[in-house]
Amino acid sequence: MTEEMLLAALAERAETIEASLEVLLPGSDGLDAPLYAAMRYATLGGGKRLRGFLVMDVASLFGVSETCAARVAASVEMLHAYSLVHDDLPSMDNDDLRRGKPSTHRAFNEATAILAGDALQARAFEVLAEPDTHSDPAARSELVLALGNAAGARGMAGGQMIDIAAEGQALTLSQVARMHALKTGRLIQYSAEAGAILGRAPQQVRAQIAAYGRDLGAAFQIADDVLDASGTAHELGKTAGKDQAAGKATFVTLLGVERAKTQARMLSEQAANHLEHFGDEADRLRALAAWAVSRRS
Amino acid sequence: MTEEMLLAALAERAETIEASLEVLLPGSDGLDAPLYAAMRYATLGGGKRLRGFLVMDVASLFGVSETCAARVAASVEMLHAYSLVHDDLPSMDNDDLRRGKPSTHRAFNEATAILAGDALQARAFEVLAEPDTHSDPAARSELVLALGNAAGARGMAGGQMIDIAAEGQALTLSQVARMHALKTGRLIQYSAEAGAILGRAPQQVRAQIAAYGRDLGAAFQIADDVLDASGTAHELGKTAGKDQAAGKATFVTLLGVERAKTQARMLSEQAANHLEHFGDEADRLRALAAWAVSRRS
Repeated sequence: MTEEMLLAALAERAETIEASLEVLLPGSDGLDAPLYAAMRYATLGGGKRLRGFLVMDVASLFGVSETCAARVAASVEMLHAYSLVHDDLPSMDNDDLRRGKPSTHRAFNEATAILAGDALQARAFEVLAEPDTHSDPAARSELVLALGNAAGARGMAGGQMIDIAAEGQALTLSQVARMHALKTGRLIQYSAEAGAILGRAPQQVRAQIAAYGRDLGAAFQIADDVLDASGTAHELGKTAGKDQAAGKATFVTLLGVERAKTQARMLSEQAANHLEHFGDEADRLRALAAWAVSRRS
Repeated sequence: MTEEMLLAALAERAETIEASLEVLLPGSDGLDAPLYAAMRYATLGGGKRLRGFLVMDVASLFGVSETCAARVAASVEMLHAYSLVHDDLPSMDNDDLRRGKPSTHRAFNEATAILAGDALQARAFEVLAEPDTHSDPAARSELVLALGNAAGARGMAGGQMIDIAAEGQALTLSQVARMHALKTGRLIQYSAEAGAILGRAPQQVRAQIAAYGRDLGAAFQIADDVLDASGTAHELGKTAGKDQAAGKATFVTLLGVERAKTQARMLSEQAANHLEHFGDEADRLRALAAWAVSRRS
């Protein structure tokens, strides 16, 4: 599969996910209008939808209906969007720019941004538990359980805490790896796993998919560090070189660009190897692993 | 049932819930330690545990095991604690005092407080979805669905948005009632309803319990406004008279103390009336409705 075909598939899935988000995140014309508007502002119209793509592409391996998969993809993207809104806050990373637009607290205000993030998280869990997401309540319950684990203290929130607590400290390579595994890795892993949960895959197959997601997430993060060190704000749609400026240890500062690139490529291959029991139908997931480390933005 | 007996029951349930929270919220000695510490600080050792009491007392009507009910009670208390942490933030209500202690962002810092709230919300949903909470995944899924609805934009977060957006505006009585119904009412209603979900109560019975919770919550809120207008910071364990000072419309500013008290009593009786199909076993819930409007703190 060529990169062009993968990018076309990403764009197509992104459209499906966007349509799902449009339905799942209505507006309001009451006093609560700013909340609904901020939730939509933070979530709609942006990003590669990598997480949502993973949900849908893995789900398609198991013949899951696209409508159900798109709901879970939308839920993961809401969770991801909420994390970006909160990470950008002045007391956190203090970032004014996100996906080339003012970050949510700049477009609205801080209180509205905090609440929009909070409400997006609640909505993400709610959508998973709605009967339309899967006919089997056991599947819905598993989706919620795994997302709670991936999003909370033992996952994304814990990783962000380590990132913040480490400011001014010299983290070791294994500490940086663990921080990223929690902060971004767990949700990417969840996204792949959610597709397998939707497909009621046997435990062993689910574990392979989870391992693919874990290694893909790690590869993606190292590639991000490389891009952040060499990219510009324009290409990234966010403030570039911020981590170095803040004196944060990254894979690039710890390994240098070349060894970081090698490490990312190794993880990308390892991710693809977890798919060995699948045939051609998993080619797009293999191409995604390759693209994760070859992309230029 | 005397007030003394009710207070003893509240205290006993609070101990059970505290023990459950202790288990469900471990500490950490890694770089993420502040997050875990802040989650515990915000949640443990405080409050009347009204919401958790409701879960457990309603669940006991249906013979639900205390262990399962205590887990759901703990989950609701985590959700409630997270909302207090975020509400107290400088960009929200900017409150330095909570339950007689420094609020979480004062005891830690703002970033840690935001993350602790975020992680508490995730943990609340995770606990509901864990198999230990109920043997039937359909019950777990319903618990999650209803909490997502009660906590998000159409519930608690939406109510807080209205509260903030209304600053400096003269809200009408019905707007204030709606704001409180969302901001605090929905979670209190959920707490009662969760007991009925745990008990697999028939839809009609669940609706009665939900109606009890809704009216109880409304009565409780008006009584809070009355206390806030007349109480001291010492009795309330938080900053008193803050709403009036901020020029916010409350039931007391809109109705006056006497009519507000009458309204609260009416709602309290209405709450109890929804329990008419229950016998003596619901006496404690009836006593709770009476106490909601007679309490002095």
